[in-house]
Amino acid sequence: MTRDFDVAILGAGSAGYACALRAAQLGLRVALVDEGQVGGTCLHRGCIPTKAWLQAAKVRRTVAKAPSFGVLASLDGVDAAAVKGYADSVVGSLFKGLTGLVASRGITVIPERGRLVSDDGRGPGIETGGRTHRAGAVVIATGAAPVTLGLPVDGTRIITSEEALRLDALPGSAIVLGGGVIGVEFASMWADLGVKVTLLEATDRLLPAEEPGHSRILAKELARRGVDVRLGTSLTEATATDAGVRVLAGDAELTADLLLVAVGRKPSSSGLGLEEAGIGITATGHVVVDERLQTSARGVYAAGDLVSGPQLAHRGYAHGIYLAERIAQLQGAFAGTPTLPRDSDIPRVTYSSPQLASVGLTASQAGADAEVVDYHLTGNGRAQILRAPGEREIGVVRLVRRGGGQIVGMHVIGEDVSELIAEGALLVGWQAAPEDVAGIVHPHPSLGEAVAEANWALAGQPLHMHS
Amino acid sequence: MTRDFDVAILGAGSAGYACALRAAQLGLRVALVDEGQVGGTCLHRGCIPTKAWLQAAKVRRTVAKAPSFGVLASLDGVDAAAVKGYADSVVGSLFKGLTGLVASRGITVIPERGRLVSDDGRGPGIETGGRTHRAGAVVIATGAAPVTLGLPVDGTRIITSEEALRLDALPGSAIVLGGGVIGVEFASMWADLGVKVTLLEATDRLLPAEEPGHSRILAKELARRGVDVRLGTSLTEATATDAGVRVLAGDAELTADLLLVAVGRKPSSSGLGLEEAGIGITATGHVVVDERLQTSARGVYAAGDLVSGPQLAHRGYAHGIYLAERIAQLQGAFAGTPTLPRDSDIPRVTYSSPQLASVGLTASQAGADAEVVDYHLTGNGRAQILRAPGEREIGVVRLVRRGGGQIVGMHVIGEDVSELIAEGALLVGWQAAPEDVAGIVHPHPSLGEAVAEANWALAGQPLHMHS
Repeated sequence: MTRDFDVAILGAGSAGYACALRAAQLGLRVALVDEGQVGGTCLHRGCIPTKAWLQAAKVRRTVAKAPSFGVLASLDGVDAAAVKGYADSVVGSLFKGLTGLVASRGITVIPERGRLVSDDGRGPGIETGGRTHRAGAVVIATGAAPVTLGLPVDGTRIITSEEALRLDALPGSAIVLGGGVIGVEFASMWADLGVKVTLLEATDRLLPAEEPGHSRILAKELARRGVDVRLGTSLTEATATDAGVRVLAGDAELTADLLLVAVGRKPSSSGLGLEEAGIGITATGHVVVDERLQTSARGVYAAGDLVSGPQLAHRGYAHGIYLAERIAQLQGAFAGTPTLPRDSDIPRVTYSSPQLASVGLTASQAGADAEVVDYHLTGNGRAQILRAPGEREIGVVRLVRRGGGQIVGMHVIGEDVSELIAEGALLVGWQAAPEDVAGIVHPHPSLGEAVAEANWALAGQPLHMHS
Repeated sequence: MTRDFDVAILGAGSAGYACALRAAQLGLRVALVDEGQVGGTCLHRGCIPTKAWLQAAKVRRTVAKAPSFGVLASLDGVDAAAVKGYADSVVGSLFKGLTGLVASRGITVIPERGRLVSDDGRGPGIETGGRTHRAGAVVIATGAAPVTLGLPVDGTRIITSEEALRLDALPGSAIVLGGGVIGVEFASMWADLGVKVTLLEATDRLLPAEEPGHSRILAKELARRGVDVRLGTSLTEATATDAGVRVLAGDAELTADLLLVAVGRKPSSSGLGLEEAGIGITATGHVVVDERLQTSARGVYAAGDLVSGPQLAHRGYAHGIYLAERIAQLQGAFAGTPTLPRDSDIPRVTYSSPQLASVGLTASQAGADAEVVDYHLTGNGRAQILRAPGEREIGVVRLVRRGGGQIVGMHVIGEDVSELIAEGALLVGWQAAPEDVAGIVHPHPSLGEAVAEANWALAGQPLHMHS
């Protein structure tokens, strides 16, 4: 058979490039096709620049609170162009590392727009600029793009997160439409940077994937920092004006300098030749795959945000690695057992202030025999040290177990709690029972002690907790 | 038998109060004897106030770096009395919580100086102010106190960490004697607060329990921030002067506003009636115990810093919990299996900048067949976001495994890495192999991804790493 590659990957975002790196490591000949830059949305227009802006917001908050720690400081404003320069430098440095890595593994990067071509007997392929690259397998990993709900997005007054990250000046005021992860992160970040923010959410709570109690704590905290949080409020009209935007939401008319539309991201599955190859696409634009991420076309797989489930870069990595191993296995180049993590075992982090980090099932998802423990960070020394004096501690570690057995969920809200979820992912992924981890020692003082305390409480032996 | 208590505990620090809380939870009648406040050194004069001062130092560093993140701020100095006020408020709040918890469990607190009394047939006891409290078992947990090496400590010019935490004004300059955890934390904190610091260490490296490479990175980073680090340098003379202190160290004469003596802590084992009860005490002052923390006197146990090994509050907790369960088991009140963690499974954190966090064996302790992977945080997105633009990334996650098998050590250095060691303690404590955890997903972007990358590399499949 004359094949150009062992695997050809359409889309060089988190799922696509991870697949390429792992496949090349296993000795496969790999093509990585994307008209955009390697790294995709997450690196260039998503997770990374957003978290850099959130870090600048945190720095501003720290400066504002510095006197309460005994550090005399004054805040002279925010230079948005400089924040953007910092965010760009982080992206640039990671991009340089990534392209070096891709090159060092001998991956053929084809920087063109690609399209799936059906198997003609030599395997499926990807066509770019009139040329067809045949491969033993094709992975489609083209990700997702912002949904705009038909709103008149103009990129300056009515924008999506992609334009928001390119602003050289902060708005004085902003309306954020959507209380999911992106909307909440922008609302929190902008509020901390001094922007007057209104946050509109059509349902009755923020972050619908998280514990309802944590959604309430988050809404309250955002409101305390000046965000006008309007739940159960739908936007019915949005118009760009000379001065900014005019919005009808619920029964109110609101104006602001800009409107950020953050109502979700839709899989980028059209115009890629998928339907022509007989591949099923759902009404939501997701590619239909089996439990091994295979589409209905032989040798063609899908990964990342194209596949229905949480839209997370690290889920994309896991899909990409899995598919590289699975394809290498089918081609006789891998003797291990490719393992695809369950969506519920994949941790989620919202980098707002407070942060939310969770993995596994919520109490209500765990069902009627779920046991729940909430450990409040008021009892945690490290949390009390990190908290600015005078601020109320709102942090909680929630553990959920099922029927007196294994831990099935961990849900944390609080300042700087994101790294705790690594332990949660181990507990849930390994199906640990509280008794299994009761003897594991956490350093003092650390936020992680709160996880230990919650575990002890589930095991019936709380230490620093009223029982 | 007429016994006043089921267990009487001498010393209300981390080991003692944890023992009391757990014993009371198991239904034992508990006496907790200490002339000082419940919480002991860690809460009142150690970990907690030190970490609060370190947090103030971090806030000052953040303010100083704010412009590089795009946040315009100016630093107007440090109000040491206000830092102390903040530290005191953290201690006060945790102390209030702890005393409430102790009271709620029905523990009898005896706020007097106590002394062991031998078993007269009714069990051993603790004597306080002429009264003897007999108990089924006695736990000695009197902790440790600073060693001063015969130096003329006067509490103002020549001080220990306990006085350093009570300063109402920062010195302009300080000499820190000792490159262990306490010396390093104070050197780092004071340097960040604007004090001119000289750090003297008699051996050839800082933090001798940590990986030698990490000791070197730390020394270099402290030097970069202006600390005059002098390794292999012994102090031969120290004199308080009108202006401050004069010190002879190596072949140099040094002067500064004060000298902090941080050369270690010695077990507080004398004058407690231990020798009289026939209990062995080593030349270093440690109480001789068997593998169940039992002394040579029947029914008398020792816990925490009195027992040779790392001096850590969380080791004290673990000892206290273990002894509560062991004693309850012997008295028929506990049916589980008390488990005492191995010292090498207990994580260690140094909260300097950079932080060091480790658990288990170093590469050299693991022996000739140890395999080592170093993942540098230059490749980690979260680390690049947290790092101030223009600063060099020095962070590393090191994993150590033995003979192609289980992970026996994790050693991390970098900014804000302390919480990562919870995962390390699970990996080492559960004797995990890299392959066992290869499928556990870490959120992106998070520092924890570096642990996953190091694991993948050990398992022979590095993702974001040149292989």
